[in-house]
Amino acid sequence: MAWDPNFEVAFHPRTVAVVGASRERPLWGDFVLNLQRAGFEGRIYPINPKAAGEEIRGLKAYPNLVSVPEPIDLVIITVPAASVPAVLEDCIAASAKNIHIFTAGFRETGEEQGIELERQVREIAGRGGLRIVGPNCMGLHIPAARLTTWDVFDPKPGPVSFLSQSGGHAGLFVGDGARVGIHFSKVVSFGNCAGLDAIDFLEYMADDPETGIICMYMEGVGDGRKLTELVREVNRNKPVIVWKGGLTEWGAKAAACHTGALGGQKEVWDAFYRQTGAVRVDSLDELADVTMTFLHVPPLQGRRIALMGAGGGNSVAGADVCAREGLELPTLTEKTLNELRSFIPPEGTFITNPLDIGIVLRDVNLLLRALEPVAADPLIDYIIFALPVGLFVAGMPFDRLEDERALLEAADKQYRLAMDSLIGFAHRNVHKKPLLLVLQVGGGPPLPGMRRRAQRDLIAAGIPVYLTLERATRAVAKFAQYHEHQSKAQH
Amino acid sequence: MAWDPNFEVAFHPRTVAVVGASRERPLWGDFVLNLQRAGFEGRIYPINPKAAGEEIRGLKAYPNLVSVPEPIDLVIITVPAASVPAVLEDCIAASAKNIHIFTAGFRETGEEQGIELERQVREIAGRGGLRIVGPNCMGLHIPAARLTTWDVFDPKPGPVSFLSQSGGHAGLFVGDGARVGIHFSKVVSFGNCAGLDAIDFLEYMADDPETGIICMYMEGVGDGRKLTELVREVNRNKPVIVWKGGLTEWGAKAAACHTGALGGQKEVWDAFYRQTGAVRVDSLDELADVTMTFLHVPPLQGRRIALMGAGGGNSVAGADVCAREGLELPTLTEKTLNELRSFIPPEGTFITNPLDIGIVLRDVNLLLRALEPVAADPLIDYIIFALPVGLFVAGMPFDRLEDERALLEAADKQYRLAMDSLIGFAHRNVHKKPLLLVLQVGGGPPLPGMRRRAQRDLIAAGIPVYLTLERATRAVAKFAQYHEHQSKAQH
Repeated sequence: MAWDPNFEVAFHPRTVAVVGASRERPLWGDFVLNLQRAGFEGRIYPINPKAAGEEIRGLKAYPNLVSVPEPIDLVIITVPAASVPAVLEDCIAASAKNIHIFTAGFRETGEEQGIELERQVREIAGRGGLRIVGPNCMGLHIPAARLTTWDVFDPKPGPVSFLSQSGGHAGLFVGDGARVGIHFSKVVSFGNCAGLDAIDFLEYMADDPETGIICMYMEGVGDGRKLTELVREVNRNKPVIVWKGGLTEWGAKAAACHTGALGGQKEVWDAFYRQTGAVRVDSLDELADVTMTFLHVPPLQGRRIALMGAGGGNSVAGADVCAREGLELPTLTEKTLNELRSFIPPEGTFITNPLDIGIVLRDVNLLLRALEPVAADPLIDYIIFALPVGLFVAGMPFDRLEDERALLEAADKQYRLAMDSLIGFAHRNVHKKPLLLVLQVGGGPPLPGMRRRAQRDLIAAGIPVYLTLERATRAVAKFAQYHEHQSKAQH
Repeated sequence: MAWDPNFEVAFHPRTVAVVGASRERPLWGDFVLNLQRAGFEGRIYPINPKAAGEEIRGLKAYPNLVSVPEPIDLVIITVPAASVPAVLEDCIAASAKNIHIFTAGFRETGEEQGIELERQVREIAGRGGLRIVGPNCMGLHIPAARLTTWDVFDPKPGPVSFLSQSGGHAGLFVGDGARVGIHFSKVVSFGNCAGLDAIDFLEYMADDPETGIICMYMEGVGDGRKLTELVREVNRNKPVIVWKGGLTEWGAKAAACHTGALGGQKEVWDAFYRQTGAVRVDSLDELADVTMTFLHVPPLQGRRIALMGAGGGNSVAGADVCAREGLELPTLTEKTLNELRSFIPPEGTFITNPLDIGIVLRDVNLLLRALEPVAADPLIDYIIFALPVGLFVAGMPFDRLEDERALLEAADKQYRLAMDSLIGFAHRNVHKKPLLLVLQVGGGPPLPGMRRRAQRDLIAAGIPVYLTLERATRAVAKFAQYHEHQSKAQH
């Protein structure tokens, strides 16, 4: 695959010009400010003929690109659509090659003027050898370069890259991803694809050593056959997780408004997923859950689950969602069952799969003792542990503590003991079985914020955490399907 | 339908005996303590021959039921399974009629001993005219009576009753429901149904003036035909929302362990929902979302949605989920579109349905101005408003505020202004169109805890709030389906 050095310049620019930067703070999308906030270490040049010689956000403003005193690695265009062609001519004159057009009002309007403007953008780009991201998009978010156009910035780099036709989805994934330990190498929002498109970016990510997992959100595609071939190839080495928006009638209409995309039919996309082995997701939550699973769980064959949790109804619900997602709940070996029966009281428990052992979960020592034989069982591939968050502190003598401070301190101590034990078990991982946690509500009165805290602590320790059994099993099923495809593709 | 005065006694007891109460605090299920915590105002009698004459949780313990000096309205049995028949004989001797058997270890074990014990329970109950809840269940949770067996108690009464074969689901629904404004009239966890079953409780709830919405979680049913007829009848006056657990192969196996239920096939339950018009849900989250919708939205025909939100990708995702749930996104009238176009800037917005008006949402005055014509549009039935929580404070001059305290105060002020405006609009509700909110993440850096706070504030004002577009549209689709069924059933 082609590796293009120009991308390197765009992704790690030393100089960025913001054309259309204004002294007034816009209601949204102040790119000079967003770069400053992100701690961008290169030089930022605000461009605005009306503000020439003045300062914008403390930086000297220039009337146009050619007046900037050094080469510009990345140009961000925010002027109204009708002015964009003239700015692109200015880019050619200034020898600036990498352009992000934020401005909307092109093909996606469905109106003659917008369509003609986008035709002009293509023509000028072709003539000048410009590499255009957009128009109608948020552009680039590169933590390692401290470069972003978004209001929200997660400064921590990670191995995930996200190619998104939606800037909104990209911003949300960055913001929400950080909460579950997903950090990014490169995020590209590319909107109408008048210049570069998904294929160009995917070719780069395939060879990018900083990218290990590739996520995509697409509404429409130019060359579907080429994309399919490319994704099939890339997916062999790096998981490609694809969310196709606009697969329904209403969704396709909305996509046509959004990026002017002509979506392609559901059947075509079914074939795309089948042929490429790309992981299919249908929402932002699913994208986050699946990505987190790939981040934290080593490659693994199998879909046999041991489901541990509290409550008979919960076991039934968990078994139902496993079945709906095509996961298996094998009967554990007699050895495992006997070992568990040897110390787990029969009242209110069921030593089967799902394991309903609520009472055991209330004592962290018993819990660890129960996890051990389950992890050792040769018939299972993963442990999914549905933990009602309140259980962390349920066994403590709330009623014997008089003052609130003592109570909170005791609860905090108990919480930390439970977490340390659980994390220690997962890290020892003697039997090489992934431990996945579902943080359920309930299980007694939790400490305020305890679920969020447990999510943070477990994620930080590299343990995948899901908020519902549905989300956990769906993510695991997709993870399993990916590795089944990989295994078949190799034979 | 039969109205049985004995239920009144059980649901509003003046005296409760806990048979098997112990001086040692059990790891779980200290029912004397739970009643005390809930503020039960009647008298509690701990029964334990080994502790006779001593005190348990500060209360005098009795050796058996007959030694209690007054009639006992409700007996809670927590002794081991093998001792339960003897306690039931004691109930007959003491003329106690209402019995909750918490103890497990009966038919659900699948073992001969348990099956025989359950047979004995049935025989004694029949002979003595005992009204038995359970065995193998959590029993009763009646906020108005300050009566509960659960560790967690929501003291606020409400119009929802929950009949659940799972005590765990019941506890979770009570705990989680309170967060979204769902409060309960009666919650009954009835486990193995050796005495009373879903039909008995449903008959009571049908006539209970304190119950307006009936939720059910079932694993198995004794008399399926009778249940179907009863639900069909009750559902005409009070929405019956039914979650059937164990509909899959793995789930049915787990249900057999849990309550000894023989589940019935998927096709049978499909017919049940079709014939009764009961609202079908498949998870606890769905149960909560649908119940909240029925609580806050007045009866209404139609499934035409105006979807307002921020971001093109978000619009596509919203349109896709509407289509998947069978909701409609009609094109708004020209009058509405023109009115919106008159003040909404075209850049970065799409005046269509879904309405992508992120910039407008950043200014609460513009937001209210946009809501008005949409609510007035005769082609729509509901407004679903997908609000990125951060937008509440996104327009504020974070960068011009130096110290953190001033920033938090300004953000707080802006948050309250936005909420007051939104709640005011919903309450005026000039055009009788329900406003449903989806609190999305994103939209700029939110205040800590703002999403939770917004959820609480909006719910308190009677505005339904959902955490994702998927959950909102699914709940609305089920709500719409219920009212379509009602309308057909009347003609």
